[in-house]
Parts: sequence; structure tokens; C-alpha cells
Amino acid sequence: MPLKAFALILVLALAPALAAADPLPSWRDGQAKQRLLSFVAEVTEQGGDRFVAPEDRIAVFDNDGTLWVEKPTYTQVFFVLDRLDRLAPQHPEWATTQPYQAALERDLGALGVPDLLKLVVATHAGMTQAEFQAEAARFFATARHPRWKRPYQDLIYQPQLELLEHLRGNGFQVFIVTGGGRDFVRSVSEPVYGVPRHMVVGSSLQTEFESGARLRRLGEIVEPVNDKAGKPVNIARQIGRRPILAVGNSDGDLEMLQYSAGHGARSLQVLIHHDDPEREYAYDHGAEKALAAVAEHGWVRVDMKRDFRRVFPFDAP
Amino acid sequence: MPLKAFALILVLALAPALAAADPLPSWRDGQAKQRLLSFVAEVTEQGGDRFVAPEDRIAVFDNDGTLWVEKPTYTQVFFVLDRLDRLAPQHPEWATTQPYQAALERDLGALGVPDLLKLVVATHAGMTQAEFQAEAARFFATARHPRWKRPYQDLIYQPQLELLEHLRGNGFQVFIVTGGGRDFVRSVSEPVYGVPRHMVVGSSLQTEFESGARLRRLGEIVEPVNDKAGKPVNIARQIGRRPILAVGNSDGDLEMLQYSAGHGARSLQVLIHHDDPEREYAYDHGAEKALAAVAEHGWVRVDMKRDFRRVFPFDAP
Repeated sequence: MPLKAFALILVLALAPALAAADPLPSWRDGQAKQRLLSFVAEVTEQGGDRFVAPEDRIAVFDNDGTLWVEKPTYTQVFFVLDRLDRLAPQHPEWATTQPYQAALERDLGALGVPDLLKLVVATHAGMTQAEFQAEAARFFATARHPRWKRPYQDLIYQPQLELLEHLRGNGFQVFIVTGGGRDFVRSVSEPVYGVPRHMVVGSSLQTEFESGARLRRLGEIVEPVNDKAGKPVNIARQIGRRPILAVGNSDGDLEMLQYSAGHGARSLQVLIHHDDPEREYAYDHGAEKALAAVAEHGWVRVDMKRDFRRVFPFDAP
Repeated sequence: MPLKAFALILVLALAPALAAADPLPSWRDGQAKQRLLSFVAEVTEQGGDRFVAPEDRIAVFDNDGTLWVEKPTYTQVFFVLDRLDRLAPQHPEWATTQPYQAALERDLGALGVPDLLKLVVATHAGMTQAEFQAEAARFFATARHPRWKRPYQDLIYQPQLELLEHLRGNGFQVFIVTGGGRDFVRSVSEPVYGVPRHMVVGSSLQTEFESGARLRRLGEIVEPVNDKAGKPVNIARQIGRRPILAVGNSDGDLEMLQYSAGHGARSLQVLIHHDDPEREYAYDHGAEKALAAVAEHGWVRVDMKRDFRRVFPFDAP
């Protein structure tokens, strides 16, 4: 066989393997995908200008709206409402007391962040850690998202799962840094994202060690809440290193992105932009400052409509 | 060659390899070593009664007196005194104000725990995280232990290094849970123990995110201090799982041992007992309750004199 023909056959035979070797098949070709791939290639290139030692390859991802759907409201709010309904018979006063009444009547627009924190304390405190874990497990096993009628933990973004895997395959340590409840997210982080419980940083209640070697959840929130300037504080507390990659989607992630950007050229900051009402949702509210910062600093903006070939794992590939 | 002779030669040839395969060569044969090896073998035996899945193989080690020397006082107190001497010219009032005066005059017996915390705040707060890290690095590079005239981080127990390695080799995740300062221990945990920064749980100061994307250390301690009942609380906060192996040496570790013991038969609790004044130190003070609990519950007591064949890495093997 002439050499050229042989080479052609070889190329054709290898083509599917080469295509399969794309580590981010659910990302459409474009600037966002290209910058993510280049960044990972450059910080892992031994002897390269942007090389980063494995122990410093820390990546942090926000959760709500960054790794999974946060609309029509946060998954944890559905969990709070679910528990509130179940506890209501023991609390007849809730029917006429705010913010419980609004929550029970699903007047969600009436609930501000302080109201939500009050509802979190009312539904998440008083029990032991083991009891809380059982409640969270029950919720994830039985509750369904109102739009897709699927378990909430199915509503994760397939392109992000591929990115997490690509990072881990390149020596990154991937942490979730959620404004939501640390223990709530930990109850699914390992099976859903491959992120072990100790690599989830989040908001939490105080606990107390009691006889019987149990931890009981108290009605006080650990400061700072893991949002805005609380994120870098808690990253330093739990992770102890400045991340070289930070991925968020809202103003609550801005300080985390700024903290990561303090690394300079060996870092990357990414914002997920929700602009796809057909396949997911479209909203900029609560992300105005973050979007402005992305434009100002030349960070990566991921437009879901353009950049995500596929949104959910259950979508056709 | 007769088969028997061949077998004998084979045994003789393999003997060094078999001996080298002992994962804990610096431990003397005895009950402590045997129970540690059996525990690791049993929780990793697929299908065995005591099998524990890898994600639950969490081991926690206290640091001062458990992994490194804590006499004549904690290493971090030497760091505090070193910084105090350097800062004293800017604080002439310290010469006549307690507890600063006692510390500057090395009247260490006069300093209780509240005094030490005050001195920690005076010497560890006000600076950025990066500045603190540089100070800690300078200390470990230059300071010498008064007895051995070696860097403090050389005074680690060789048998424990082997145990950490044996655990990691069997799928354990090894965390340090120190009553001392988290950031202080983190500054050496990776090179000295192979424990990454995020796997160190400890006491700490509040920090604040400031412009310039820096974290500044404040003069307030994060509650709970990582001692006694604060240890299980902070383990749940940062690790998020109940450890199956806990190793300590004092009453400050008792609640951590109790918390681990809540796992039942698939767990092991270990207390290092300092009874070797020639090679290290001998003291029971501050460990009375823990020693009583070890006897009561049948936990493992490691008598350094009997159980450690070799104490420090620089000792002859």
C-alpha cells in the first residue's frame, strides 16, 4: 500500500479516538472553552511560564447557579419549605407569624435574606448532625423540581461536570464554595460532583458536642456567612490557599473572583451567565456587579446559550 | 538441587524483602503496633466484618505531643516569644505590663492559657496572611529547640511518620487536628508530614477581606478554640465526617477520641504516653483524664519508651 494511502487510513481510523479525546465535549467551541483548555494546559506545562505546582492548583466553584439550577429559587429553600410544612402541625403559631406564614403560603417574593436565614434556623437547628443528614437524604430522594419534575440533584450542568473532571485529571483540587448550607450540599457532593465532604465550604450553624458523642445543631449561624467577602475568609479558613481558578455566577461570588485574581497571570476567573430561557433560565439580576467586573478585567464569561452544547446530563448528547 | 534446599535458599533470599515490608519499622513489636496493623488490615479487607469504605477512612492526629515534641513548652509559644522580642522595641509599655513582662522575662510558669491567648493575639494579629506566612517560615528556618539545638520541625516522631504513610497507603485521609494555630501548623504540614494545608484543622484568628484582595488577621479568636469539645465541633465543620481513627496525647484530645469512638467496632482510639525522659520527656500532667479513659475503654496506649524503637528521624535506625 502506498504510504499516503496508509497515512490516510490511519487518520480516518484515529479520528473517532481524537474526537473522543476532547475533555469538554458538552462545551461548544469558542472563546470560553478555548481559554479554559489553554489555562489548564499552561499551568500544568512543566517548565512553562505559567506553570503552577500541583499543591497550588486549587479550583473553587460556587454551587447555586454555577453547578446546578438556582431557579425559581435555591434548592435549599425548597428543602426549608418542605421541612416547614412537616413541622407546621407542631407550630400552630406559624400560620399567623411572619416570615413563617409567607413561607407556608408560598409567598416567596415576600421573603428577604434575613427571613430566609430565620427559616433556615427554624428548620435546620435543634437536631443532631445525623438527624439532619437523614432529613437531607430524604429530601434529595423524594423531592422534585417544579419545572423538570426530576430530583434537584439531576439539574446539574453537564459541561461543568466535564470541567471538574478535566481539572482533577490535571492535578487540580476542586472545592465547592457555596453560599448555601455546607451540610446540605455535603449530603450530595460526593455522588453528584465527585467532591468529598471536606472539600465543601459553605454557610453553617454552630454545633455543640454533647454526651453520647453526638453533635447537636444550634440556632446560631457561624460567621461569616459564606457569601460575598465571607467567601475568601472561609476559603482561607478551610482551604488555606488562594485559588488559581474561581468560577461563580453572581455578585455573591465577586470577592471570591477578586481573591483568586490576586494570583495574577497564573489564575483564571470565570462567570456563568444565565441567558438561555429555553433550556434553563435567563437573568442578570443579582449579577450586575459581577458582570461589570468580568468586562472590566477581561475575565471569562460563559454564555450558557452559546457555550453549552448540552445543559443537563439527561439531555441528548 | 533438592527441593528443600531450594526452598531454604528462596526463604533466605526473600527474608530481607519481607523484613523491609514491615510498614512500621520504628515501632517495636508489641500490643500497640499489633493493634494498629490489625485495625488497618481489617477496615481495608473487602467483604470483611469491619470493612470501611475509603471515603470514611478518616484519621485525625493531634499535633503537639502526638506528632512532634511539646516540651519544655509548645513550639508555637517559642514563636510567640520570638515575635514578642522583635516587637518589644515598639512597645516599651510591655516591660511593665502583664502578661508581656513575664513573657519577655521568660517567666513561663506565670503564663496561663488566657495569658497565652493574649500573647498570641498581640503577636499574630494585625498583619496580612502573606506576612504571617513569611514570619512563620522565618521562624522554622532559623529557630532552634533548646535541648536538641535543631529546627523544631525536626523533632517529629519517626514512628508516627511511618504510621501516617501506612494509613495513606491504605486509602486513609489523614488530617491534623491541633489545639495550636491552624496557620502556624499549615506553614510546615506539607513538607514535614505530607499533610496538605486544607487537611489541617486548628485554632485561628478571625480575618477580614480587604481591598487589594488581601486577608488581614484580626485580634479576635474564631470560636470554638480547637481544644477539648472544640475538636469534634471543628472536625465536623471542616472534615464533615466522624473519624474512624483518632490519635492524641492529652486531655485536650479526649472529646476527639470519644467522638471517634462513637463509630463503635470499626474505629480505633490511640493515646501517646510520654514516659521516656532519656529520649524525649516523661509527664502525665494534663493527660490524667485521657489516660483514665484509655484504661476504661480499652483504647490503645502507646508507651514511647516501650513502643518506639526509634524516636526522631535523625536517630540511628
